[in-house]
Amino acid sequence: MNSLQHELSNLKVETPSWGYADSGTRFGIFAYPGAAKTLYEKLEDAAEVHRFTGSAPLVAIHIPWDKCDDYSEALKYANDLGIGIGALNPNLFQDPEYKFGSLGASDSARTKAEDHIDDCIGIMRKVGSKTLSLWFADGTNFPGQGDFRTRFQRFEESLARIHGKLANDETMLIEYKPFEPAFYSTDIPDWGTALLLAKKSGDNAKVLVDLGHHFHGQNIEQIVAILQYEKKLGGFHFNGRKYADDDLTTGSINPYELFLIMIEIVKGGSPLPAFMVDEMHSLKNKVGEMIQSLVEIQTAYLKALLVDFDLLSKLQAEEDLIRCEEVLKDAFQMDVREALTEFRASKGCPSPENPVDGFLSSGYSERVANMRSN
Amino acid sequence: MNSLQHELSNLKVETPSWGYADSGTRFGIFAYPGAAKTLYEKLEDAAEVHRFTGSAPLVAIHIPWDKCDDYSEALKYANDLGIGIGALNPNLFQDPEYKFGSLGASDSARTKAEDHIDDCIGIMRKVGSKTLSLWFADGTNFPGQGDFRTRFQRFEESLARIHGKLANDETMLIEYKPFEPAFYSTDIPDWGTALLLAKKSGDNAKVLVDLGHHFHGQNIEQIVAILQYEKKLGGFHFNGRKYADDDLTTGSINPYELFLIMIEIVKGGSPLPAFMVDEMHSLKNKVGEMIQSLVEIQTAYLKALLVDFDLLSKLQAEEDLIRCEEVLKDAFQMDVREALTEFRASKGCPSPENPVDGFLSSGYSERVANMRSN
Amino acid sequence: MNSLQHELSNLKVETPSWGYADSGTRFGIFAYPGAAKTLYEKLEDAAEVHRFTGSAPLVAIHIPWDKCDDYSEALKYANDLGIGIGALNPNLFQDPEYKFGSLGASDSARTKAEDHIDDCIGIMRKVGSKTLSLWFADGTNFPGQGDFRTRFQRFEESLARIHGKLANDETMLIEYKPFEPAFYSTDIPDWGTALLLAKKSGDNAKVLVDLGHHFHGQNIEQIVAILQYEKKLGGFHFNGRKYADDDLTTGSINPYELFLIMIEIVKGGSPLPAFMVDEMHSLKNKVGEMIQSLVEIQTAYLKALLVDFDLLSKLQAEEDLIRCEEVLKDAFQMDVREALTEFRASKGCPSPENPVDGFLSSGYSERVANMRSN
Amino acid sequence: MNSLQHELSNLKVETPSWGYADSGTRFGIFAYPGAAKTLYEKLEDAAEVHRFTGSAPLVAIHIPWDKCDDYSEALKYANDLGIGIGALNPNLFQDPEYKFGSLGASDSARTKAEDHIDDCIGIMRKVGSKTLSLWFADGTNFPGQGDFRTRFQRFEESLARIHGKLANDETMLIEYKPFEPAFYSTDIPDWGTALLLAKKSGDNAKVLVDLGHHFHGQNIEQIVAILQYEKKLGGFHFNGRKYADDDLTTGSINPYELFLIMIEIVKGGSPLPAFMVDEMHSLKNKVGEMIQSLVEIQTAYLKALLVDFDLLSKLQAEEDLIRCEEVLKDAFQMDVREALTEFRASKGCPSPENPVDGFLSSGYSERVANMRSN
Repeated sequence: MNSLQHELSNLKVETPSWGYADSGTRFGIFAYPGAAKTLYEKLEDAAEVHRFTGSAPLVAIHIPWDKCDDYSEALKYANDLGIGIGALNPNLFQDPEYKFGSLGASDSARTKAEDHIDDCIGIMRKVGSKTLSLWFADGTNFPGQGDFRTRFQRFEESLARIHGKLANDETMLIEYKPFEPAFYSTDIPDWGTALLLAKKSGDNAKVLVDLGHHFHGQNIEQIVAILQYEKKLGGFHFNGRKYADDDLTTGSINPYELFLIMIEIVKGGSPLPAFMVDEMHSLKNKVGEMIQSLVEIQTAYLKALLVDFDLLSKLQAEEDLIRCEEVLKDAFQMDVREALTEFRASKGCPSPENPVDGFLSSGYSERVANMRSN
Repeated sequence: MNSLQHELSNLKVETPSWGYADSGTRFGIFAYPGAAKTLYEKLEDAAEVHRFTGSAPLVAIHIPWDKCDDYSEALKYANDLGIGIGALNPNLFQDPEYKFGSLGASDSARTKAEDHIDDCIGIMRKVGSKTLSLWFADGTNFPGQGDFRTRFQRFEESLARIHGKLANDETMLIEYKPFEPAFYSTDIPDWGTALLLAKKSGDNAKVLVDLGHHFHGQNIEQIVAILQYEKKLGGFHFNGRKYADDDLTTGSINPYELFLIMIEIVKGGSPLPAFMVDEMHSLKNKVGEMIQSLVEIQTAYLKALLVDFDLLSKLQAEEDLIRCEEVLKDAFQMDVREALTEFRASKGCPSPENPVDGFLSSGYSERVANMRSN
Repeated sequence: MNSLQHELSNLKVETPSWGYADSGTRFGIFAYPGAAKTLYEKLEDAAEVHRFTGSAPLVAIHIPWDKCDDYSEALKYANDLGIGIGALNPNLFQDPEYKFGSLGASDSARTKAEDHIDDCIGIMRKVGSKTLSLWFADGTNFPGQGDFRTRFQRFEESLARIHGKLANDETMLIEYKPFEPAFYSTDIPDWGTALLLAKKSGDNAKVLVDLGHHFHGQNIEQIVAILQYEKKLGGFHFNGRKYADDDLTTGSINPYELFLIMIEIVKGGSPLPAFMVDEMHSLKNKVGEMIQSLVEIQTAYLKALLVDFDLLSKLQAEEDLIRCEEVLKDAFQMDVREALTEFRASKGCPSPENPVDGFLSSGYSERVANMRSN
Repeated sequence: MNSLQHELSNLKVETPSWGYADSGTRFGIFAYPGAAKTLYEKLEDAAEVHRFTGSAPLVAIHIPWDKCDDYSEALKYANDLGIGIGALNPNLFQDPEYKFGSLGASDSARTKAEDHIDDCIGIMRKVGSKTLSLWFADGTNFPGQGDFRTRFQRFEESLARIHGKLANDETMLIEYKPFEPAFYSTDIPDWGTALLLAKKSGDNAKVLVDLGHHFHGQNIEQIVAILQYEKKLGGFHFNGRKYADDDLTTGSINPYELFLIMIEIVKGGSPLPAFMVDEMHSLKNKVGEMIQSLVEIQTAYLKALLVDFDLLSKLQAEEDLIRCEEVLKDAFQMDVREALTEFRASKGCPSPENPVDGFLSSGYSERVANMRSN
């Protein structure tokens, strides 16, 4: 188990600053007592997640939601809490100028978007981040609204320009999503489009896979494998879904699929893609749900590490389907809770045997509900 | 064509007050210049839709969004504009008490919800409405969150209680929806559940079909037919969808499906179910999109009336599949724009040959943008 | 664990005779060496499954595929092998008269189908079966091909007639399926239609849930719960699916969903519905795949038994979502392989610790490949 | 209309030889009286389709189903009937060696498959075909069965080898399909994978879009546009679908989507991709259904030609969504049956005003049912 414990240490998951703030559906937002409002509060929440799990040392931030006057101070605050700043996420959808899109839309929208991304690259350098994570709400709601080729070409050009601004050790992630908030077409609907654009942009452009951004029946683990084969898998958004982009807790709907995806990640070897959680914590305790997600990720990752890959290869070559599947099932059936407890204990986590309940019982949520103005 | 013109007169579609107000997605709302804010403004917009199409004489209202001090005054305002008030829609999702549901949740949430519905029945009588239209956002986001049987039983009991408060000539519509805002389960996910509850509630309870509330691949026209066969089809929400409950313009994604649905409506005979539009007009001109929807509904309805049902029955009996389909195609291929122009002209509509462009060019939107405070 | 072992004994799963014969896709069938051809061979295979798992004491049969001259002899053969005969499945789709349907189609097709079902009820009584399991391939491929109401009414009438022929202790199961082999509409597409028809038919008519017969995103565990609440859940077809009605190994795609379904079954209490496997073993060793399926069913059932339902109810009442979910996860995370080994050992199964590998290594398949003519 | 008539002449659709033979679902095949068995009979049927529509001058053939002793004789027979031979489709799924795949599987399967494709290239040259159309049933049924990267790499290598054998004016089409007959993963599941492989293979490799091979909610017209933008759209399989790869009549489920797809084709300009029908005519008159499909294709194509693209571009630039959509609706609402009659009359087609009914009433089907042995 020692080498497994070592491998577990490599698992580093970013949690999103926006996951600690109030959010909801188009039907409304329910205010959560003590939900984080400032970047500082979000960093405090994120630090709790890392403290209880040992695998969440970074926070992804979102501009302008996390805009602040002094980024070096914010970074210091994070570091003092034992964490750092991860991917930088520009907001390219909320301002009225983005009503019909950002990079895929009119010249004025594109200019505004490129300028904003430019600013974000500047912030990246202030907070020590190497990752620019791009999601575009761009698309159309109705047949005829836009010209597919024109919109694609605009992305092609703008992304190449943005890529040109990156330093050698900086990465630009391109996320895809089949629908919402654009309902008839999205400009980057699937991994094929994202890969195409990443290849056209340059070496530092990679694809980001969000688990909720797929069609029903699509095989995500295969997409992960092929992107990795093409050396273009850059990042990951963990969450769960049953119908659409539900942004539920990771592993809450199909933990076996999460395990199969982790197998492809493990097969891909080092370095791991940038792991991030991207969920909408609208009903559960926000920090608690994040810890629950981290535990699911740890579980799936550890089970994937337990797969006997040599045996699997041998059985695949023999076309022994049943035994191939049993190799996976053998790892999945294992109860890894003790091994995870051991890992978290080695990291000095409180309640290493049950971080979810440990956190919920810790009084943290009640404390911040009192302290933070709502 | 004369009898067709007569039949067209029977088409009465309610437009929703909330369709004239600002709305959007969970990623944000773009303010539309002159979007209606008060019930009075919504009634003015709705009157335009009826004026240009001749088929939208009623407005569905939503409480508390359309709450006002004097409903008889509001009704008079509507009547003076040439329209009336249609279905009453209680809001059972936005208040914090509904965080985990309304009728399907805790006793306090249920009591609040039943009381609110009670109030709404009172309002119905003040505005001359005979239709209570119930949509519940109830459901769960995670496995284990709720007990399916308990939640179902709560609905069974509460709906029976509500039904007991209706007068003989009042109808209660039960809407179903497979997901959103609840993402793991909804308490009334499909027509089967809605029908079961309607039957348990009593004779005045019927099912409402919203075109966007189905699974991919589901045959909606068949559901319409079976509900009508069971004498339980009560109402209809028109809209369009490509992926989820997109609430796009009616007929914008698959007008042939709309035509097939209308065929079942026509087959069902009189009285027609309560027709309503339920869309989210977030990018297009709001009144213009409503008129566009009405024209699509008129088109599909008229084409359905043109089907040669006697010939179809004969060919069905002969199992002559190709010719059966050709009977439908013959009606669908017809260009009915002239006939619709004639109908609208007979109703005194301005721009009867092109109500969409007529409205957009009329200056109405510019006028209200100036007049209404935003 | 003793009471769990006792509860495990209640798990009785029928395996389908047709699962031991060659089958495939519309693109072809690959002959499997030693695939069973006669009912006797199928019974032998099924007996192996029961011998290795202890939970498969019955075989569902299909007429005419399993037609034989002397059913009492066949029954005796089964009994001597330690198994019995389960549900009787009439074939209502392969004969040319069924080209456009059976009960939903023309008078001649309906008469033929009703007569065949009549014969099957006779066979039921000869083989000691109490369950008539009805699946209809009926439906239409094109808009206009059939009239939904007429076809529904035909089913209503025919099923009532068939129900009238059942004895008090005999059950008639009505299966639903959204598509295939009919592609535009199926006459019993969903649980709502099946329930409606079962209620109209009478007390001994119940609904059969096949795990592969659902739309994407549909919540099957909720359907199971509601059917049971209505006392109309009669039977179950286990299999796995990723896209359509794939008929893959049970638990191979989403074992957590299987566990959630089993939770509803366990909540429903005794008697359990008639459990059956319905898979298409086209690539794997046929008997081996059946054993693999049985082990998955045992696993999911045992984990469902391990759920702390009292705690769950308490947490549900407290709306403590995270801890509710953790109650389920606690049971699902457990490694139950030892407990299952114990159970199978108590039943005298060979290789109780690994029935799948035990069977594959037993030489049975090689033996029958040599003995049976192919 | 004259230039439209000219453009209509450019529409050349291949019909598939296999569409004239008996086919069905995995639940069985219903023999059709007079269904074509030999290549010669298929050519006769195809010639009827061209005779009645004027747009189906080529027949796609399938090897070994259309294997014959003297291809030049077959070609002459076709030419004498007024048609030619189109794409060549190797069968890479029916032989037992392909049980686990062809190019994606073991060395022996790959060798067999490459040899067969080689033979097919030889046949292409004998029948005057320039198009090799490749569909692979390859994939896996279960997690763990295969290694995604390895299988992808095998395709990469084999397709490059095959490409190397093509002459400059020969094209190799790569088809994608998300599921069936492989149910867990297919080796070329989507357009992204097909495009990746086409780019790696070389200039003469292009992607083939089959309308039924997509996920629910996927925007096919956008895929067509992007493939064309990348100059990699090579071919098209027309058919209709509601749920899976249903292979129904083109335009039978969503003719508006077909129109939107045709708009992208028209926008792409000359040369048009290789158009083919790929349907399964199991219930309708086989030749009649093909003619019905051709009429739907002619209708959609002509309506697409009628779109006012200049106005559309102008309105798109103005972000006038409603009027953009109305431009499309204006073309779609037109009744083009007269224009198509004119076109078919100019080609000397019998029953130019109604080729479907004209053919069904022509006595051809009755004649061949008598003449051909069944």
